[in-house]
Amino acid sequence: MGEQGRRNGTRGCIIPIGGAEDKVRDSAILRRFVRICGGRRARIAVIPTASQDPETGARYEETFKELGSREVRTLPFAERRDCERKDWLEVLERADGVFLTGGNQLRLSTTLGGTKAARLLRRRNRKGLHIAGTSAGAAILSEHMIAFGAEGPTPHADMVTLAPGLGLTARIIIDQHFRQRDRLGRLLTAVSYNPTAVGLGLDEDTAAFLGPDDVLEVAGSGAITIVDPTEVEYSSMDSSQQHDPVSILGVRLHILVEGCTYDLRAHRASAPAPREER
Amino acid sequence: MGEQGRRNGTRGCIIPIGGAEDKVRDSAILRRFVRICGGRRARIAVIPTASQDPETGARYEETFKELGSREVRTLPFAERRDCERKDWLEVLERADGVFLTGGNQLRLSTTLGGTKAARLLRRRNRKGLHIAGTSAGAAILSEHMIAFGAEGPTPHADMVTLAPGLGLTARIIIDQHFRQRDRLGRLLTAVSYNPTAVGLGLDEDTAAFLGPDDVLEVAGSGAITIVDPTEVEYSSMDSSQQHDPVSILGVRLHILVEGCTYDLRAHRASAPAPREER
Repeated sequence: MGEQGRRNGTRGCIIPIGGAEDKVRDSAILRRFVRICGGRRARIAVIPTASQDPETGARYEETFKELGSREVRTLPFAERRDCERKDWLEVLERADGVFLTGGNQLRLSTTLGGTKAARLLRRRNRKGLHIAGTSAGAAILSEHMIAFGAEGPTPHADMVTLAPGLGLTARIIIDQHFRQRDRLGRLLTAVSYNPTAVGLGLDEDTAAFLGPDDVLEVAGSGAITIVDPTEVEYSSMDSSQQHDPVSILGVRLHILVEGCTYDLRAHRASAPAPREER
Repeated sequence: MGEQGRRNGTRGCIIPIGGAEDKVRDSAILRRFVRICGGRRARIAVIPTASQDPETGARYEETFKELGSREVRTLPFAERRDCERKDWLEVLERADGVFLTGGNQLRLSTTLGGTKAARLLRRRNRKGLHIAGTSAGAAILSEHMIAFGAEGPTPHADMVTLAPGLGLTARIIIDQHFRQRDRLGRLLTAVSYNPTAVGLGLDEDTAAFLGPDDVLEVAGSGAITIVDPTEVEYSSMDSSQQHDPVSILGVRLHILVEGCTYDLRAHRASAPAPREER
């Protein structure tokens, strides 16, 4: 029984990773995920649906076994009807942690969206199942998902396409490969449509471990860019032509590295403090 | 005290209207809204934020008074800081019904999103406040809002831009002026990104009265097009180029007119039956 069993009734962790996480050196992010899921007792399910590469699932399976998980199963949902397969739903029902690989987030949402598998993931996360995802697998975790968009630092009204995601939380909008692909503009655009969710720009090999208290902690070798729009005084989003740059006044920005935390309820960033690991 | 008071604890109605609703002849939709809010006891707040026309609020105020409401107040939130005004929040706190006018839904979401006013509307709707909106005011009611998009019957991957809405329900995505502006393609696109929410295409002068049991009833002179994607077997959304047409297999479509109902939990449409009005 993983930690999920011990804290029955509280939400499991939600762990978006910015892509290209280390799998061969110390695998810090994946190792921490396995530990949270119960370490040697952890049962992990890998969903490689986003990926076109048929080997993706097997590679993560191997990594999670090397990191000491008790049981790892790959569930290669390829068509919508796969998402009703009882034997695979059974695996999700028993898992301590689920890992969504990278690839194309629209392949994930069009395959899983509205199926029994998606409902089960939502329901079990509320009861303690930990769900991690990298790149496309990170994008889909929240209610509002960045499906695709353009590069560049300046927001434009049509710079990004949002779609419904898996819906584990509505407090964040996630972007990944963040500094590697110059995505500040599209994340600013995404949060400016409605300044209610906080934008999380995840660099590669960097993860947010978001606990049931809605406090996230940064892990990995890069940074997380927090785009907090709750104090925005004005934006021209509603009056801009679609290709024009958009002005936004009063965004609060934080760049957080390993050990920093961010409280999504209080909208407060904190530097690392000596304390027990969450 | 309106009906909201009597069914304390259950969600208030959510009433998207397709725009251009009759205000001068029998005003059937607006009359029904007033009746649900308590008729002669109804306290109604009008939010004209979406509109550029400074007279919009006053016109609805007059209409709702003519229809017999006890008290009507216009709250012209124009800037984000207006959404923290205590006297206006007080009005929302006491209202039996709130009406969002038409205009530009991005003006609504950029002005209200993430403010005290938005949080209050969500909270009070869960406890019984009825919230209606027409056109832009309809679009914003749900969690996923169509911000803008292109016309035409065939879906394309980049045909529509979604944004977070007011979030009263995640079960529907709303489009308005539906047959008048040939919007089937963009609604199909919106639901295809993630086949979990049901698309509601509202004709002008047509409303969905969505009760706390997640059953909606159609009222007005036009039709509501229901686009139910829950049995979709396949779509090419994830593999299409942005300007290519997208194929979708297995959408269930219903065209509903006055008196028809649709159950958003069971995904079941019903023809009008002789029964007491909901």
